[in-house]
Parts: sequence; structure tokens; C-alpha cells
Amino acid sequence: MTQKTAEPEVVTKATNITWHDHTVSKRERSELKQQRPCILWFTGFSGSGKSTVANALESALYRQGYHTYLLDADNIRHGVNKNLGFSAEDREENIRRIGEVAKLFVDSGVIVLTAFISPYRRDRDMVREIVEEGEFVEVFVNTPLDVCEDRDPKGLYKKARAGQIKGFTGIDDPYEAPEKPEITLHTERQSIEESVTQILDELTARGYLKA
Amino acid sequence: MTQKTAEPEVVTKATNITWHDHTVSKRERSELKQQRPCILWFTGFSGSGKSTVANALESALYRQGYHTYLLDADNIRHGVNKNLGFSAEDREENIRRIGEVAKLFVDSGVIVLTAFISPYRRDRDMVREIVEEGEFVEVFVNTPLDVCEDRDPKGLYKKARAGQIKGFTGIDDPYEAPEKPEITLHTERQSIEESVTQILDELTARGYLKA
Repeated sequence: MTQKTAEPEVVTKATNITWHDHTVSKRERSELKQQRPCILWFTGFSGSGKSTVANALESALYRQGYHTYLLDADNIRHGVNKNLGFSAEDREENIRRIGEVAKLFVDSGVIVLTAFISPYRRDRDMVREIVEEGEFVEVFVNTPLDVCEDRDPKGLYKKARAGQIKGFTGIDDPYEAPEKPEITLHTERQSIEESVTQILDELTARGYLKA
Repeated sequence: MTQKTAEPEVVTKATNITWHDHTVSKRERSELKQQRPCILWFTGFSGSGKSTVANALESALYRQGYHTYLLDADNIRHGVNKNLGFSAEDREENIRRIGEVAKLFVDSGVIVLTAFISPYRRDRDMVREIVEEGEFVEVFVNTPLDVCEDRDPKGLYKKARAGQIKGFTGIDDPYEAPEKPEITLHTERQSIEESVTQILDELTARGYLKA
């Protein structure tokens, strides 16, 4: 948790605003939003349905009045991580920065969703460790590789098989499945709605959402 | 503005959740918070009062029900920017990442405050350019250098004068004052409360806050 060390000085002069000599805390920002902030960290192969389900889940949460934000390739790779490539170091730094940004959103009181392959257990665990106990919810989108390759929505598997993309997760780079994910989805036999309903139910059962 | 390109597929199967085949937009997130998101970018010398006023302003905004977040050295330098030093390149990258993170918070519908010296005009203007028109509000904390050096709350000026810190803004590194800041403060003759009241008044006049 981020602790602010700089406390504003106490000023005794009377004005028309109410004065409080403290900084706004994570707890207060969460109370304003009437919710328990957390990171919903989606992980799985390219084409597993991470972004699709995360977008649909955000939509469902929004309609229930929750304050959310979704970090994905669209707003991260062209922004804070635009100076990163796909080397081993850059991939680790990519996840590290995403984790740190997600932590800031949790500190702001938001339910933040992230949708990245994030294939390495070590990198995901690193994010789990920088936030408080219970703030990291790992959502394993456990769609089998052959199903993802059949879908191939962006034609990336075809390119990887042809050798045009190197180090592609599942083809010539490993995917380390979560050992104890909080939530596991199987989009090869679940509709998007079923996946969303399952997550909402599990988050409610775990006390993240109002019953 | 970040545009989400991945639209979830339309699923026709009936379930107990309302289905909408769209992603949640900045506009919707802002409407939920009933506010107009922006970056309040504080800039000025070390000791000018940036953090103090920004914290007090956040507190005042919170008490009025606004959804805010403050980016400062405490949560940035130990987090997303912890692998950056103080070389010219790293300083530029520091502000670049802060700007990109602030942009994400604006996209999430939040009023985000930043408190960094950010001495170079080019870096601040870079941030202004990556967000939409009117989303960047430059708050120039125009406290004279000699007042800041007299305050020297962290003893940094003393160290810089003694040559123990190199490249210190105002001592042996330049501060480029904003040419057209939206708001200018003079903490050498304003109390913290007066500064906060001035900002609240100017933000209201400019339509960022409810009258």
C-alpha cells in the first residue's frame, strides 16, 4: 500500500473551506466508490478470450455501478510501455510496469482488470506481491492451445508456425499455467456470458462484490 | 483518448445478465463519477509547495465528492519509475511515464493531480499533447527560488549548494517556467487554504467543477 509521507501543514487561519490536515487514503477513495478495490488479472494464451471476457465483465460491472478500469494492449503498449520491445528483459519490464500501474488504480479505489498473456509465473507472482493480501485475483483463461490456434483471431499463430514471429507463447515460448488461480475459465465450452456470470458469482462469494 | 478496438462478440443466448456488445467508454466512466476528468499538473521548484497544495486540494475535492488520485514521488518513484535515475534521459522518461499514467487515470474518469518539479517545458508540453484539448491544466506554483531555498524542507538546497547533489533544479539545472499556465499560485504570500480556494474557484470558472 502506498503511504503518503508528506502531510500538509496545519493552517489555523479561517476560510470558507473545511480544513483537514491529512491526505486522502485508499480507504476513503474506496468508500466514496462503495467498493473493494482489486486487480482482476486475466492470463492465458493469445486467442483464449482474455480481452473479450474482460471487456464484457467490465461492461457488466459498470452496469451494476462499480468503478472499473481495463488495462490492455491498446492503452498500455502505445502508452507507458511504448518504448518496450519483446526481448526477455522487455517482457518482464512490461509486466512489471503494468503491475505497478494496476497497483496505483487499486490505491485509487478502482477495480482494475488487466488482459495480457503474462505467460511467466514469476512475473504474475511479482505483481501479487506488490499489492496487499487479497487484492490480486488471478483469472486463468484456461482455453486449450489447439482451440486458441483454431480461432487465431489475429492470424498470429499462423505467422508463428511459419516462423515469421519468434518467441510466440505456446509455439516456441512456454506458458506457465497458474498453480492456484482464484478463478479458472474454460471459454472453449463456456459462452462469454457464462464466463462473466461465473466471475461475478465468484467475486461475490469472495466478498469483492455486494451480494 | 484511448479507443478500445476489441469488441466482445454478440452472444444471443439468454442469461441472467443484461448483455451489451460494447466496451465501457471514458464518457461512461466519467458519467458514473458525475465529473469531468482532467490532469492538474503542478510544477515548480522543490519546496515551492506543490505536494502540500496538491494534497490539500485533493482533500477538499474528496470532501465535495470528486473522484481523485494524486501521483507524486511517493507512489511513482518507488513504483513504475523505480528503475529510473536522474540522468537527462531518465528525467525525460520519468515525466513521460507519469504523463502516460495520468492519461490512463483521465481515461478512467478521474481528476488526477501530479506533483513533480517537471522543470522542462518540452516535457510538460509533451504531456499536454497526449491528452485531449482541455484535459491538461498546468498549475504553476510560482514561489521564488530564494523562498524555496529558505524553506528547504528536505535540506536538499543545502546539499546542492555544498555540491553533494548535482543537477539540482534552480541551483545548477534550469527551471523553465510555464508560458501560459492555466493557474498560477504564489505560496510565498498565500496560505495553503488560499491556494486551494483559488484553484477550486478557477476550476469552477473553467467548467471543471460544478458551480
